[in-house]
Amino acid sequence: MLVEFGGTRVLCTASVTEGVPRWRKGSGLGWVTAEYAMLPRATNTRSDRESVRGKIGGRTHEISRLIGRSLRACVDLKALGENSIVLDCDVLQADGGTRTASITGAYVALYDAVSWLAARKSLAGKPEKVMHRSVAAVSVGIVAGEPLLDLCYVEDVAAEVDMNVVCTGDGDFVEVQGTGEDGVFSRAQLDALLDVASLGCLELAEAQRKALAS
Amino acid sequence: MLVEFGGTRVLCTASVTEGVPRWRKGSGLGWVTAEYAMLPRATNTRSDRESVRGKIGGRTHEISRLIGRSLRACVDLKALGENSIVLDCDVLQADGGTRTASITGAYVALYDAVSWLAARKSLAGKPEKVMHRSVAAVSVGIVAGEPLLDLCYVEDVAAEVDMNVVCTGDGDFVEVQGTGEDGVFSRAQLDALLDVASLGCLELAEAQRKALAS
Amino acid sequence: MLVEFGGTRVLCTASVTEGVPRWRKGSGLGWVTAEYAMLPRATNTRSDRESVRGKIGGRTHEISRLIGRSLRACVDLKALGENSIVLDCDVLQADGGTRTASITGAYVALYDAVSWLAARKSLAGKPEKVMHRSVAAVSVGIVAGEPLLDLCYVEDVAAEVDMNVVCTGDGDFVEVQGTGEDGVFSRAQLDALLDVASLGCLELAEAQRKALAS
Amino acid sequence: MLVEFGGTRVLCTASVTEGVPRWRKGSGLGWVTAEYAMLPRATNTRSDRESVRGKIGGRTHEISRLIGRSLRACVDLKALGENSIVLDCDVLQADGGTRTASITGAYVALYDAVSWLAARKSLAGKPEKVMHRSVAAVSVGIVAGEPLLDLCYVEDVAAEVDMNVVCTGDGDFVEVQGTGEDGVFSRAQLDALLDVASLGCLELAEAQRKALAS
Amino acid sequence: MLVEFGGTRVLCTASVTEGVPRWRKGSGLGWVTAEYAMLPRATNTRSDRESVRGKIGGRTHEISRLIGRSLRACVDLKALGENSIVLDCDVLQADGGTRTASITGAYVALYDAVSWLAARKSLAGKPEKVMHRSVAAVSVGIVAGEPLLDLCYVEDVAAEVDMNVVCTGDGDFVEVQGTGEDGVFSRAQLDALLDVASLGCLELAEAQRKALAS
Amino acid sequence: MLVEFGGTRVLCTASVTEGVPRWRKGSGLGWVTAEYAMLPRATNTRSDRESVRGKIGGRTHEISRLIGRSLRACVDLKALGENSIVLDCDVLQADGGTRTASITGAYVALYDAVSWLAARKSLAGKPEKVMHRSVAAVSVGIVAGEPLLDLCYVEDVAAEVDMNVVCTGDGDFVEVQGTGEDGVFSRAQLDALLDVASLGCLELAEAQRKALAS
Repeated sequence: MLVEFGGTRVLCTASVTEGVPRWRKGSGLGWVTAEYAMLPRATNTRSDRESVRGKIGGRTHEISRLIGRSLRACVDLKALGENSIVLDCDVLQADGGTRTASITGAYVALYDAVSWLAARKSLAGKPEKVMHRSVAAVSVGIVAGEPLLDLCYVEDVAAEVDMNVVCTGDGDFVEVQGTGEDGVFSRAQLDALLDVASLGCLELAEAQRKALAS
Repeated sequence: MLVEFGGTRVLCTASVTEGVPRWRKGSGLGWVTAEYAMLPRATNTRSDRESVRGKIGGRTHEISRLIGRSLRACVDLKALGENSIVLDCDVLQADGGTRTASITGAYVALYDAVSWLAARKSLAGKPEKVMHRSVAAVSVGIVAGEPLLDLCYVEDVAAEVDMNVVCTGDGDFVEVQGTGEDGVFSRAQLDALLDVASLGCLELAEAQRKALAS
Repeated sequence: MLVEFGGTRVLCTASVTEGVPRWRKGSGLGWVTAEYAMLPRATNTRSDRESVRGKIGGRTHEISRLIGRSLRACVDLKALGENSIVLDCDVLQADGGTRTASITGAYVALYDAVSWLAARKSLAGKPEKVMHRSVAAVSVGIVAGEPLLDLCYVEDVAAEVDMNVVCTGDGDFVEVQGTGEDGVFSRAQLDALLDVASLGCLELAEAQRKALAS
Repeated sequence: MLVEFGGTRVLCTASVTEGVPRWRKGSGLGWVTAEYAMLPRATNTRSDRESVRGKIGGRTHEISRLIGRSLRACVDLKALGENSIVLDCDVLQADGGTRTASITGAYVALYDAVSWLAARKSLAGKPEKVMHRSVAAVSVGIVAGEPLLDLCYVEDVAAEVDMNVVCTGDGDFVEVQGTGEDGVFSRAQLDALLDVASLGCLELAEAQRKALAS
Repeated sequence: MLVEFGGTRVLCTASVTEGVPRWRKGSGLGWVTAEYAMLPRATNTRSDRESVRGKIGGRTHEISRLIGRSLRACVDLKALGENSIVLDCDVLQADGGTRTASITGAYVALYDAVSWLAARKSLAGKPEKVMHRSVAAVSVGIVAGEPLLDLCYVEDVAAEVDMNVVCTGDGDFVEVQGTGEDGVFSRAQLDALLDVASLGCLELAEAQRKALAS
Repeated sequence: MLVEFGGTRVLCTASVTEGVPRWRKGSGLGWVTAEYAMLPRATNTRSDRESVRGKIGGRTHEISRLIGRSLRACVDLKALGENSIVLDCDVLQADGGTRTASITGAYVALYDAVSWLAARKSLAGKPEKVMHRSVAAVSVGIVAGEPLLDLCYVEDVAAEVDMNVVCTGDGDFVEVQGTGEDGVFSRAQLDALLDVASLGCLELAEAQRKALAS
């Protein structure tokens, strides 16, 4: 599925394999992992392909791991049974918030994949047990002293503090990553950012519900 | 730009850099190169990312080189002046003919890039001199004894002979690559394939003209 | 310098080069970066060397980037002038909290390096302006429902929530990274963790002051 | 065996392994593959070793794949049975036409390897069924407007069109690869090149027969 | 264990795995191997990490192989049984003779590992049969015309001849590697170096005996 | 030049570049380096290409370094001036002693390269000053208790002690590398091996003189 947030467009797909990697065989548990990448011209200036450079950069690694962790948080791996799901998030166009858009979109792709497995009677548990929570993510930041939701690229560069927040549909936190890009931040600022982020995630959860219902 | 041929969808972009690689500096000549890649889920079964495997496969290398050669054939590098253009062809969905779709689409992206350089007065020669020819490409094959244009994946697998042909808008050949995938082919069969391919390329050249006019 | 926190021992060194990487030359700004690594037998079970595997894993990348960002937060790169400092954090023995121990130790190594540059009159600004803040880091987590400071390996594995917090000596936040390893966490739990972490960092800041004074 | 065409010298060897790669086990089919490489000083100017650069270049990949495809065209993999043959073509000295010399020489090495397997009674079918065709290859080109057979390096550089043609001993085509290195080519020129190439391949087929008879 | 020779400090550890690599299974023989590495700041000037460069340098390879060979010389692999021992020698601080210090220290770590296996009743033979010899190593050289034992870094750079000698506790040779770094050496000089080295190794053997007794 | 010792055949070439690597510019000194490699079918059983595996093995590294060191021992780098010479030793066929054959052959190739530079008046000093010594190398070993010169593959495998010795034409040592492959060796055995090796090298020096004279 293609996710669009402002000028950011991410292609999120879920690929199912029956069976799990060797080190997990016989555990009765499934496996969910994610790979994130940017097309070379997703940004305004072309960046080199990681395949050409022969190695994956630190930023790509970090985001792939974040997406994987976030999505595993909404899956009951026991109920999934010994099935593997790879989530691919390929950024076609980037204008800020590519990692949070990837998580939000990957959730929908994952849900579809689990439904497909359910239809094939390949799950160990019931589908609603496998997907017992929804997850969505937003980027928030402090720009010119004000907390702001969904930073585009220009705002992101200008942000004093930059935070990615992953929440469940019930308003709990899955992951909180805040960085003082240009300076530091007080507890009060942190609290304000968390408030904005929680609300933003709840709105996305609602949008996800609608998308899956249609 | 997004090119679609049947079930094949390729994102073709051209990125311009003023200046040329070090080994070409001071030559007065420009440089055009291409990179081809497939998203992991472009095909029906997910394939591993080349960035994760840490190296580019032989097939990818071969196709990138073919696209680069074909596009250089339609550019006067002297008239381009010391500018570099990278053509990225990323296959979002693959159903046969991804390399020929890439060439056909990359031509349009390249044309746009040269026009942009012309508007900035950055070309050494006139734009119509830089792009003195158009190029387009088709795949043809012999399936069940019959020459066929634009093979989709199922036909491609069944083909006894598989040929990629790159032509100019004037009907000349830029590149001819024919392979007896399953067996060999006679001169008569080769001639029939070349006839079908030439006609197919002329139709694409017409479509390119219309796309660029609009 | 060798940092010890419980069973964790990290060798932190700072290496100074006059001059900066090419892409930064002439900017008047310095550069601070970090590399983190574990000896193969730092953990109880031997892990393969990343040099032998031929690539750096995602976790190593992620931690190196975190250390670098955290340390840059306490340095005024303009006052540092065009000098480069590489912080090497090599874990000799790991028993939880290796990344936070690395940050806390790297601060002291960095301070020493800046003093050395000051003694050589190689700084653009005054040393107290270069190092205008201190940074220290702790790991906190929720184990069996209780917020806990400085998790050792066994606690880390058992933790429901795991959080790394980097603070300045003034109590501001530089970086907050919280993950629901096994489940999710509420806002109330997050607040409790931040309280514990802030206090822990202040204690470390005091210890750093003493270490540097002696 | 050492193949010499003008100033080009290629060492072609065939290595037989009983059994096939894992993904082919139990299929009853054999496997033939090829690897092409140039010694660093095969050309007039030394080129870096691909082992030192840590990766195989696009040109090497492309030629290895071409040799493999061409040689598989003359082998009945079912009659070969579950045996693997690797053809190594190492260019000791290069003066144009290294890929076509490799194919022509590899055919003889392959024939010897199949005879050796036949002598050990390790073939599934009869040797004449395994090697049911011969293959040979030539390079042709248009230099100064004239079609030319077997281009040496100087001619190759000067060629307007460059074509590699692989034929069977019966005059059928296995592979046709033509490129307008410097410009494009008409259908009439293509036809003239194919005529020259077919004749050249037939002569080589005759030479191969003699070599194998002695 | 941490070995110190002058300003050289090497951390030597032995890691035991029951079982052997696949290619050795069922042979009844054990396996001993070694990996040597230097921390980036072990030397006075920081050197790049091999993990970051993505490959192991020739010098590291060479020393790892030397340590492995030397240690295998003191082990009866049959009596060890199908157990694998990896010796890691990580140089924390380097002031000459890091490879010989590594061998001398790795012997003690290996002895401990074998004792541990003996205590678990996991050896095929008796421990004194497994470790039927001791090994130790010294570096010797000719500096300003004089044979010298245990060269520190400054002497090593100044040495006309540089030799590493590995001996058993009985005074036999395991490995002799002499290089005329700056010039060549006569048979008489070689003899003098061997005399000095043999004595040095005997002293180390005595020190090892004492260390293991305590 | 092609060197043959028994069943071992090595192609040794020297490639000259005027100028030196960047780190040596302005030093007034030349540079000599070597690269050793084996064709995949040089041995009886095919081995994988290092270019395909993507990295150079430890053995190859070790031998390349040995050849480079040995050849630098016979060159006055100051008299060579700022010229670079790369010695390529490619083993076409291996039957023991490939590294010593490489050194002996590379000396002749190096001598020719220096003469070529002399003819172009590109040397800083006189040619006889540049090449102020000759070098040659032999492998010796103890097989069934007896010292033996020039071990072929079968003897090499059976050898209890294996030693490579590089000598100058005047009988001095450049490099001595002895290993107890299967056991250890006494001082008396070492002395006997050195005697045999010295004589062997002198004979080769004579052969080199003759080859260069013709």
